[in-house]
Amino acid sequence: MGTLAPRVGLIMGSISDWKILKGASVVLERFGVAYEKRIVSAHRTPDLLHDYAREAKGRGIEVIIAGAGGAAHLPGMVASMTTIPVLGVPVPSTYLKGIDSLLSIVQMPKGVPVATFSIGESGAENAALFAISLLGLSDQTLGDQLIAYRKSLTQSVLDASFPEDE
Amino acid sequence: MGTLAPRVGLIMGSISDWKILKGASVVLERFGVAYEKRIVSAHRTPDLLHDYAREAKGRGIEVIIAGAGGAAHLPGMVASMTTIPVLGVPVPSTYLKGIDSLLSIVQMPKGVPVATFSIGESGAENAALFAISLLGLSDQTLGDQLIAYRKSLTQSVLDASFPEDE
Amino acid sequence: MGTLAPRVGLIMGSISDWKILKGASVVLERFGVAYEKRIVSAHRTPDLLHDYAREAKGRGIEVIIAGAGGAAHLPGMVASMTTIPVLGVPVPSTYLKGIDSLLSIVQMPKGVPVATFSIGESGAENAALFAISLLGLSDQTLGDQLIAYRKSLTQSVLDASFPEDE
Amino acid sequence: MGTLAPRVGLIMGSISDWKILKGASVVLERFGVAYEKRIVSAHRTPDLLHDYAREAKGRGIEVIIAGAGGAAHLPGMVASMTTIPVLGVPVPSTYLKGIDSLLSIVQMPKGVPVATFSIGESGAENAALFAISLLGLSDQTLGDQLIAYRKSLTQSVLDASFPEDE
Amino acid sequence: MGTLAPRVGLIMGSISDWKILKGASVVLERFGVAYEKRIVSAHRTPDLLHDYAREAKGRGIEVIIAGAGGAAHLPGMVASMTTIPVLGVPVPSTYLKGIDSLLSIVQMPKGVPVATFSIGESGAENAALFAISLLGLSDQTLGDQLIAYRKSLTQSVLDASFPEDE
Amino acid sequence: MGTLAPRVGLIMGSISDWKILKGASVVLERFGVAYEKRIVSAHRTPDLLHDYAREAKGRGIEVIIAGAGGAAHLPGMVASMTTIPVLGVPVPSTYLKGIDSLLSIVQMPKGVPVATFSIGESGAENAALFAISLLGLSDQTLGDQLIAYRKSLTQSVLDASFPEDE
Amino acid sequence: MGTLAPRVGLIMGSISDWKILKGASVVLERFGVAYEKRIVSAHRTPDLLHDYAREAKGRGIEVIIAGAGGAAHLPGMVASMTTIPVLGVPVPSTYLKGIDSLLSIVQMPKGVPVATFSIGESGAENAALFAISLLGLSDQTLGDQLIAYRKSLTQSVLDASFPEDE
Amino acid sequence: MGTLAPRVGLIMGSISDWKILKGASVVLERFGVAYEKRIVSAHRTPDLLHDYAREAKGRGIEVIIAGAGGAAHLPGMVASMTTIPVLGVPVPSTYLKGIDSLLSIVQMPKGVPVATFSIGESGAENAALFAISLLGLSDQTLGDQLIAYRKSLTQSVLDASFPEDE
Repeated sequence: MGTLAPRVGLIMGSISDWKILKGASVVLERFGVAYEKRIVSAHRTPDLLHDYAREAKGRGIEVIIAGAGGAAHLPGMVASMTTIPVLGVPVPSTYLKGIDSLLSIVQMPKGVPVATFSIGESGAENAALFAISLLGLSDQTLGDQLIAYRKSLTQSVLDASFPEDE
Repeated sequence: MGTLAPRVGLIMGSISDWKILKGASVVLERFGVAYEKRIVSAHRTPDLLHDYAREAKGRGIEVIIAGAGGAAHLPGMVASMTTIPVLGVPVPSTYLKGIDSLLSIVQMPKGVPVATFSIGESGAENAALFAISLLGLSDQTLGDQLIAYRKSLTQSVLDASFPEDE
Repeated sequence: MGTLAPRVGLIMGSISDWKILKGASVVLERFGVAYEKRIVSAHRTPDLLHDYAREAKGRGIEVIIAGAGGAAHLPGMVASMTTIPVLGVPVPSTYLKGIDSLLSIVQMPKGVPVATFSIGESGAENAALFAISLLGLSDQTLGDQLIAYRKSLTQSVLDASFPEDE
Repeated sequence: MGTLAPRVGLIMGSISDWKILKGASVVLERFGVAYEKRIVSAHRTPDLLHDYAREAKGRGIEVIIAGAGGAAHLPGMVASMTTIPVLGVPVPSTYLKGIDSLLSIVQMPKGVPVATFSIGESGAENAALFAISLLGLSDQTLGDQLIAYRKSLTQSVLDASFPEDE
Repeated sequence: MGTLAPRVGLIMGSISDWKILKGASVVLERFGVAYEKRIVSAHRTPDLLHDYAREAKGRGIEVIIAGAGGAAHLPGMVASMTTIPVLGVPVPSTYLKGIDSLLSIVQMPKGVPVATFSIGESGAENAALFAISLLGLSDQTLGDQLIAYRKSLTQSVLDASFPEDE
Repeated sequence: MGTLAPRVGLIMGSISDWKILKGASVVLERFGVAYEKRIVSAHRTPDLLHDYAREAKGRGIEVIIAGAGGAAHLPGMVASMTTIPVLGVPVPSTYLKGIDSLLSIVQMPKGVPVATFSIGESGAENAALFAISLLGLSDQTLGDQLIAYRKSLTQSVLDASFPEDE
Repeated sequence: MGTLAPRVGLIMGSISDWKILKGASVVLERFGVAYEKRIVSAHRTPDLLHDYAREAKGRGIEVIIAGAGGAAHLPGMVASMTTIPVLGVPVPSTYLKGIDSLLSIVQMPKGVPVATFSIGESGAENAALFAISLLGLSDQTLGDQLIAYRKSLTQSVLDASFPEDE
Repeated sequence: MGTLAPRVGLIMGSISDWKILKGASVVLERFGVAYEKRIVSAHRTPDLLHDYAREAKGRGIEVIIAGAGGAAHLPGMVASMTTIPVLGVPVPSTYLKGIDSLLSIVQMPKGVPVATFSIGESGAENAALFAISLLGLSDQTLGDQLIAYRKSLTQSVLDASFPEDE
């Protein structure tokens, strides 16, 4: 995560969420975006949550990616205490497979949005890519990197071949 | 709500939730339990939420009934900041009819429970009745009132008659 | 479970539910709360259910934790025959993963509440913690223990570290 | 309902369920099957439930139709206390429209079956028709009536015409 | 299955359903009820379905248990072509785990009922037990066996013990 | 519907489904495709269903549009008895709003497909449009009409204006 | 896939979908229908999608089978850019098991239909069989093959035997 | 919408979505952010969609808000053809009330994110507020306005009073 001041805060409710959220950090590193990662639990560390959310902007954080599962309150509560964009990643829950996490994150009331992404690993990666697109608005280099990334995605599909045909 | 110090805190995320939560206040009044009612929004008034939750116990509140809809974070966040029992009432949401509210309230992670009741008006009344049962553990009068209430419920069923038979 | 008269009744519909409910007993033991555990099936032992529910209060039981899966009638039927607080734990079912259990427990009609917790192991632990909070209302020692437990929860989050950083 | 000893018990958890269950009584009357109808609430009148279920067979009841909504415990609890067939009708609930009622009735554990029908009015009628088919096994007249009824159903479809074509 | 004329028809849409339906045959054998088992696919053998349903009653079959998964049409289509009771067992589907099977079986329109049981193995056993209860109405021996079976169920719960306590 | 031999069979389980299915007939008429419309109930007229499905192809019917609700067996049962394409339209059910109808129609087992469209009026129109595209494969005029229709759809969007801007 | 010009286009959003879609190719080969298979991603190769959809008809493709999972846009977007029939196969998603894929494919708006099949492998095979039925309308040989296939399906059920009976 | 070059593109699949999306325009106007609004249908105007998405960035659009219902492909397809942030608003569908729209929008695959908001009017407003927060990252005035807006939200809760208390 280098010595640069972090621009993205990557937080999650529990260390067990890391296996899902890790993909977000891989994307951020690929794009060379400085970030910090923290365990911040809405329910077990409400004061830390409060401080983290209130201080993030002042510390130079420009966007927060928050992953949580079940009654996933972390993204919404962070969003209630900051005006920087908050991106929510629904972590799949043991029995309901994340449909609870998704609804708990996305169904925010008028006034306090959380930008929500898909359940699980793909959502984590996409939240990071969305953070890049957002930072890329005023950072030409990042914007160009994102265009290049998209081209590589396209190329990977064009290059795919069926096992039978190889 | 009388001049007695309130024993129950009845809070909700929005004044529009009052039509659902009102039944809880009717029950509390019927049983003569002093309560206070407040609008406390997890997302729009996070600092008020913080103060309310942190100070409730010290002010003599013994149980909190919290109603919320959609990404219903209020009950869980209150529960994260107090050790007194928190009762959650899922308020029906506009499009998903409260299945989102229910899951957002009930699916709390290990360590921080919210006692959850049914969606809507019945849940509000039942949360209040549950508060009575809980207070009734050390308050013989309330306990006796609850037994009497249950008998009246039973009687109302026994007295019910079909329109055709009248 | 010691020789003290039990304060908490921990019941479940089938011995196969024990692997889910066990966490509740671990919590109760950690807090030193005397409890009893029983298999009481709403459908296979309705008379035992009747007797258990009707006699619990008289035997000094202050709160009942009832776990059940599928058409999970145990918590609601116990609640219909006692006025002490009943806490319901949805046990995950084979195919529907507990969404049936959750709805069968939480959607109680007006008049007879069951305080419902999350599906599975987390719900079992949380029901026990909620029982502690409820008993803690008139038992200062328990109340203090709960505050200490919460602090340990908070500390465990603060102490968590990412595998990469170790 | 005449002066004949009732063969079918038609019970429901609340007088408000009657608008849904009424269709069952219409069918039973059409077929001339003596029945009784009662309000029996699993949660508000557990003792009445107990007595009703335990005594039904002795009183000559051959099949019980039980309608209930939400955490619909009535059919399953009756089934747990009698060996005569119990037919369950899910009454639509206010917010979840009966999916909760359906799961609470149909997802019975091994050993204690409840024969479940569709949500709402169609389920009520069908439960009554099923009761007829069941009684018709040893009652030739009823069996013949049912065949005739089915023919009339068929004819009603054959006779149906589109408004445009009239 | 002996040499007695079968009283129960146990049919399923595919041989792969047998692992779920087998429990029904175990119950029928335990109670000594003669039955036949057949693969009858609504979609792959509609003519066999037609013949089976139309001829069952004439061959002395008194009740049909039909299991099917996914767009589970077998129970409903059999029911449309006979007036003897049809019991439906939702077989769990590969991806939706039987919620599709359940709805396809239970949501029958007015006029043609299918008595539906729980998803999977428990539903299969319960359908067989329900068939026993139904046959037991006019067969005292079966009725007595069912009472004895229920007592054994009750006893098995009373005899259950926790691993820790052994 | 003119005097031409019908190429499309438009069937539904009940006259009450007509308000949903009507849109299909409007589309067919717009394209000048001869069709017939019939009430054919899988459950109330199984013999008619059998005859209709078996004879459709011989009568020159090239594609069948079948609408049904709840345990919607009509499309799948028709498909089991013909090899011409069957298009299924889920009619919204009273309480579950057609999610039951959709699953009952779309979840067909391997071997017997039903092409399924969206719930309600849009599904009815789309099934008819799909029938046109299918007939258009060997009917240049229809194919051209469909292209023109699509252009008109596109134009209608391009022509749409906001009320505020008018 | 031979040297014949392909009549069916079999496309999917990702090479990982091939394990689900493969069954479609097996069916097409069994019937000797020339087809092509391609990876075309709605989201990663929108230009390829555009070209593929716009050119398919001109290249002689008569029907397109498109499989996709999650926010499964491929079938609908292809359908928006061609007037030949498009058949959609919902690929099961990691956490929601394809209910998201199903709804994303089937719930198309008025004007642009996608014929949708069941989730997973059965849907893939059925889409191919449906393609055969559609091509069989004007290709007597294919139509006859389909009739023979159906007979073999029927025979396979008639030949099935229970393990116990062997 | 003034004469300033629009910074936000507000698009929807149908003019009928305007009643849901209108709230987004109200927010943008309140904050004085120049925007344009357009009907762009993924399914009926795929070429317009293509051009709109490809050209938005070049025209100075910094963020796109896209609302759609049912098989809601608009947000995801726009996202596939631009690298500027795309915000998706699930419009409630007639029968499934937007759960289909939500899943179709949020469950995007790895590589192409759509930031998703709640179903209906609240989601529309929140998408606009999120656009403000995003633009506010490099526009101090907007950032300050957002902080003021949040304070007004907080104040509106603090000022709320119960009808009974007035």
